[in-house]
Amino acid sequence: MLLKRRAQVDAISRILLLAGGETLSYHQRQGARFQQGVLRIMKAFILGIGILVACTASVSADEGMWLFNHPPREYLKKKYGFVPTDRWLEHVQKSSVRFNNGGSGSFVSADGLVMTNHHVGADCLHKLSDARHNYYRDGFYAATRGQEKRCHDLELNVLMSIEDVTERVNAAVKPNMSAEEAARARRAVMAKIEKESLDKTGLRSDVITLYQGGQYHLYRYKKYTDVRLVFAPEQAIAFFGGDPDNFEYPRYCLDVAFFRVYENGKPAKIEHYLKWSKRGAVEDELVFVSGNPGRTDRLATLARLHYLRDRGFPELLKLLYRWEVVLTAWSNRDAENARRAKDFLFSVQNSRKARRGGLAGLLDPEIMARKTKEERELQKQMAKDPKLRDALKAYDQIAQAEATLAKHLRERRALEFGAAFNSKLFDFARHLVRAAEEKQKDDGDRLREYRSSALPSLEQQLFSEEPLYDDFETLKLADSLMWFSEEFGAEHPLVKKVLAGKAPSARAAELVRGTKLKSVSYRKKLYKGGRAAIDACTDPMILLAKLVDPASRKVRKIMDTQEEIKRQAFAKIANAKYQIQGDSVYPDATFTLRLAFGVVKGYEQNGEHIPFETTIAGLYERAKQHDFKEPFNLPPRWLERKDKLNLKTPMNFVCTADIIGGNSGSPVINKDAEIVGLIFDGNIQSLVLDYIYTDKQARAVSVHSRAIIEALTKVYDAESLAKEITGR
Amino acid sequence: MLLKRRAQVDAISRILLLAGGETLSYHQRQGARFQQGVLRIMKAFILGIGILVACTASVSADEGMWLFNHPPREYLKKKYGFVPTDRWLEHVQKSSVRFNNGGSGSFVSADGLVMTNHHVGADCLHKLSDARHNYYRDGFYAATRGQEKRCHDLELNVLMSIEDVTERVNAAVKPNMSAEEAARARRAVMAKIEKESLDKTGLRSDVITLYQGGQYHLYRYKKYTDVRLVFAPEQAIAFFGGDPDNFEYPRYCLDVAFFRVYENGKPAKIEHYLKWSKRGAVEDELVFVSGNPGRTDRLATLARLHYLRDRGFPELLKLLYRWEVVLTAWSNRDAENARRAKDFLFSVQNSRKARRGGLAGLLDPEIMARKTKEERELQKQMAKDPKLRDALKAYDQIAQAEATLAKHLRERRALEFGAAFNSKLFDFARHLVRAAEEKQKDDGDRLREYRSSALPSLEQQLFSEEPLYDDFETLKLADSLMWFSEEFGAEHPLVKKVLAGKAPSARAAELVRGTKLKSVSYRKKLYKGGRAAIDACTDPMILLAKLVDPASRKVRKIMDTQEEIKRQAFAKIANAKYQIQGDSVYPDATFTLRLAFGVVKGYEQNGEHIPFETTIAGLYERAKQHDFKEPFNLPPRWLERKDKLNLKTPMNFVCTADIIGGNSGSPVINKDAEIVGLIFDGNIQSLVLDYIYTDKQARAVSVHSRAIIEALTKVYDAESLAKEITGR
Repeated sequence: MLLKRRAQVDAISRILLLAGGETLSYHQRQGARFQQGVLRIMKAFILGIGILVACTASVSADEGMWLFNHPPREYLKKKYGFVPTDRWLEHVQKSSVRFNNGGSGSFVSADGLVMTNHHVGADCLHKLSDARHNYYRDGFYAATRGQEKRCHDLELNVLMSIEDVTERVNAAVKPNMSAEEAARARRAVMAKIEKESLDKTGLRSDVITLYQGGQYHLYRYKKYTDVRLVFAPEQAIAFFGGDPDNFEYPRYCLDVAFFRVYENGKPAKIEHYLKWSKRGAVEDELVFVSGNPGRTDRLATLARLHYLRDRGFPELLKLLYRWEVVLTAWSNRDAENARRAKDFLFSVQNSRKARRGGLAGLLDPEIMARKTKEERELQKQMAKDPKLRDALKAYDQIAQAEATLAKHLRERRALEFGAAFNSKLFDFARHLVRAAEEKQKDDGDRLREYRSSALPSLEQQLFSEEPLYDDFETLKLADSLMWFSEEFGAEHPLVKKVLAGKAPSARAAELVRGTKLKSVSYRKKLYKGGRAAIDACTDPMILLAKLVDPASRKVRKIMDTQEEIKRQAFAKIANAKYQIQGDSVYPDATFTLRLAFGVVKGYEQNGEHIPFETTIAGLYERAKQHDFKEPFNLPPRWLERKDKLNLKTPMNFVCTADIIGGNSGSPVINKDAEIVGLIFDGNIQSLVLDYIYTDKQARAVSVHSRAIIEALTKVYDAESLAKEITGR
Repeated sequence: MLLKRRAQVDAISRILLLAGGETLSYHQRQGARFQQGVLRIMKAFILGIGILVACTASVSADEGMWLFNHPPREYLKKKYGFVPTDRWLEHVQKSSVRFNNGGSGSFVSADGLVMTNHHVGADCLHKLSDARHNYYRDGFYAATRGQEKRCHDLELNVLMSIEDVTERVNAAVKPNMSAEEAARARRAVMAKIEKESLDKTGLRSDVITLYQGGQYHLYRYKKYTDVRLVFAPEQAIAFFGGDPDNFEYPRYCLDVAFFRVYENGKPAKIEHYLKWSKRGAVEDELVFVSGNPGRTDRLATLARLHYLRDRGFPELLKLLYRWEVVLTAWSNRDAENARRAKDFLFSVQNSRKARRGGLAGLLDPEIMARKTKEERELQKQMAKDPKLRDALKAYDQIAQAEATLAKHLRERRALEFGAAFNSKLFDFARHLVRAAEEKQKDDGDRLREYRSSALPSLEQQLFSEEPLYDDFETLKLADSLMWFSEEFGAEHPLVKKVLAGKAPSARAAELVRGTKLKSVSYRKKLYKGGRAAIDACTDPMILLAKLVDPASRKVRKIMDTQEEIKRQAFAKIANAKYQIQGDSVYPDATFTLRLAFGVVKGYEQNGEHIPFETTIAGLYERAKQHDFKEPFNLPPRWLERKDKLNLKTPMNFVCTADIIGGNSGSPVINKDAEIVGLIFDGNIQSLVLDYIYTDKQARAVSVHSRAIIEALTKVYDAESLAKEITGR
């Protein structure tokens, strides 16, 4: 949904980014895997908004998030006279890195150095911080390898190969199976393919659902779990302008961070990494973006867009508004409160802005008219071809499934997505309770996030040493229990059982105080103890998770069934569309590696020309306009070193590449595959890209490569890092 | 609801304070008057929460908001050995002032000097400010009379007499009238009584509904409309600790302001004013509070409390969360934005905190158990007495009416309370459109807010010179149109008509840009032109108001009918309760003058003793704890003058008096009717006082009288003002 995942980390943002939640998590292979790996993301599922849709109506301009095994060679040749070779593509693909907490990155040295955004690294920065050291706020630089700090639970993936397994997956589904049986059969064969691949290659293996099930590709990833922090600037410069400037342009952010991947305790040796361009991005230049767009909704039917516009987004926003207010109020009481809540709060603010932007797009009758026209035309073409007529029925099937899902929206959010139990401690409890049960089943029968192939990521999260704070967990849990009571009514039987005769705040305090799940060793013990340990466990949070599980599983089953119906219906539409439009079509985003491209250029806004780039001089001017007050304050170093800087250095720039949330941290490269910039945001006009591409005003916003080097050398005295990157 | 009306002015706070909205506005005589006088308050009606209820279940401790014509003499005598004489009562009554924008105050000199809270005066401070002078933020002091600044639209009322007109009102209602006919008959006779009284005495005359219609009293007020600002401190010290410390204790606020009433261009000569106590409030002392509590809900039936807990408050909070986020985000973009939005934002934050506090009370099973026990016992006693058995049916009638109202809650909020059109420009338009129609009718047939007696206040608001800002009006209107579309769905016929084929933001911009209602003279012209002028008018905002009026009136009619049914049912319960409990009973708050009392004392919290008073030294300590950062910053004067101050001077203190929102600015006096303090807040535990009195932890929070003099003389060099107050 998001064109950007602004801030981070803790909660929804990365999910909102993946967005849609249930589809991605339960039916999109990699989504599910990705998710379970990130327990706290569960909160975001409250979205309950989404289903992925598979391709775009008509490709034009610089539109597209292309598969690396099916790039738009002809279009590129025709429009730009450039054809990427297989070698070029392999090099870029293997230089690209996925941050499993919801962003993108790239290798920039042979010694495992990875570049991404500060806001993608924020999760790690935050978890490495404590009351004395606030690396997230103050930045960090390891001048030597020995000083590099290992992240608690970060997993990076590098896509090593793509294999089409469509036939094998489809063969597992027999013609007369019910929707539920079909889903089970598909899950089973996908799990099997993954398991076989993992056993054979040792590589993380995900079967990716593309084109809504039109194709299934096996993606094999090299996985790095020893990831160390090398450099991050101060949050004030990374996110200069804060929430007020978020999604706006012109911008002045140094939203960059560097990590290093290790293997066997040593910096990993990397064959494919991106070189640094000397001159960086220049106006009108063709550029490429290699990253992991999280989710787009470009084939969404009108019925679905109406649902999103009238129900999905409004309901989600209500929750986001509430969280933003509760977190802000708590943060304002005390500086340490603010530090603890900052990431989560930024995530919420970012999502709120993105969702309001997206909703504003859907409320624009012009946009809706274009979508209506597209759908009508597509349906007309379907009606002409007897082989495709069946797809027309799929529109009704989707509408019916949506209606069923909408009916259960409240239960889904509260129980299955855990909005009623907003605490990491509850997330631990739920996963421990479910893992104990699911691990007794065959792989194919398990909930997706507990299958063998998914367990390593789950375990990494479950056993994370990340610090937890009783007061913050209590705050979130108390508010979510209050919300639960408000949504269902205080006399609802399940609400009464959950609250156990206490007020929400008292119950939350009792649960957080009483649970032993704060201890990693206790979590490990319970996990290893399996079903018997869980059955015998009287920890209050475990008891709560056990209490709500039957109701939660019930709604999960409804979800899974309806999502499967939708999946099949969308597949029919996607397939028909594919028949009609041929291979001028790319699949919707799935948080897997894609290649986008575009031109570096400005745009018109309210009759004014917005230039393509900003400069470091502009940064100082904007800070001054706001009296250097937060969030327009500059870190002390930036004030002290101003004279040393070349103020004409480009700071940020925009281009027309088709990107979306999840692309955060993606390298922007030129035809020679050299880095010229670093994606970190989209402008407010780009928020509509979820549904429809436009290059009229929508722009991707990047840090200019020259700003990074200028800052590293003149502000941060990080000469050796700059040298490693530029090779000079 | 609110124990306090913290911040202000612009919007809901004062309404939330009156709360419940529709009852107060449409059935409580003075409520209606009060309201129409304050156009922008309309927004708050969105509450759609309330009906007033009439008396308290069992009076004990220092409970009670007593009528001046029926004080608890015996109780006071028995418990405190003090009996207020008639002279004492008359003196205090006529020294008390009602701020018609939602607060209380008192005369403190013979030359018309009035003391209230900074946050009650904030509306005026704000409207007198512009981009160059920010009196709200920076304070103001008129060292000479000539420098005193006239407020744009402030009306003060002094209660001169009370007359029981119950028999005459009741006589107008014939036994076989339908609920609607009865309401009309009652409206007609009340309007007639008011008109007669106004014509005869020239005094503002309001028939006040007490005990849910058990009694009707005619209140005659001397009205002051030439009110000038004399002194206000900086907002940073008035609201020290801001939203984080709001509703908390210990506190350190100098929440005071002084105004002066003028007649014929000269300071008014005042017979009754309160003298200043030398020593101020001391521990364990009996004190009185004379002010205008806005609304209490102590007779609310369980069904009603369940509605509030499960529907009313949660729904209202959703809107408040949204507004808080939208206003905060806009404020953060620019300092001038922040100035424009500040009052409204504070109102919203204050209401949000108060409503969450109130909801937390209702979610506490202990509180609900006490209410349940009370209701059961009352019903048991009703069942015993054949004459009272009828009242038992009233419980069902209320439940049914509530259900009908709940069914139309969305329409009421959106249309009749104007939540879909959140702009003062729309408020103007609606009032102009309705006034044109209503003024053609007989007084008794009009909507209450357009009756003859109400028109002067309406006109004062309608013709206010208060500055309006296009960008701020557009922001609010765009968001509320977006909300309207979200709530009703973008395809709803009325939504489509209202949006006229445009996106909400575009439509709002067009309306605000296009309307001429920003001009006072244009509003005057339309108002004077009456029906013909409105019919011919093509101003876009007037067209919008005309467009939505039929639907809005339709829901208004449902409201009025159901509220009348509820009113009668509550009257039966109130009456039965009165029969059972005798005159140990006081009516629920109605934003009219009441006398409360209590003892100056601290309380226990989390096992810790919270002392009754704080000191100026404590103020400096708390500021330091927060690094003097907003909202814990101190104005420069307070930093410069620290050495001059007696740091042991009491700053704030708490007492057990039974107060609620609307009491803001009430004088706290001793037995000699000398001022010892100034009410400005209640602690978080007091938020439950809406439903049930408790002196266990609930406390009223006051500025200590000594802090006021210490600050005036040593910080603000306002010696002459201090002298006028103390007479020394």
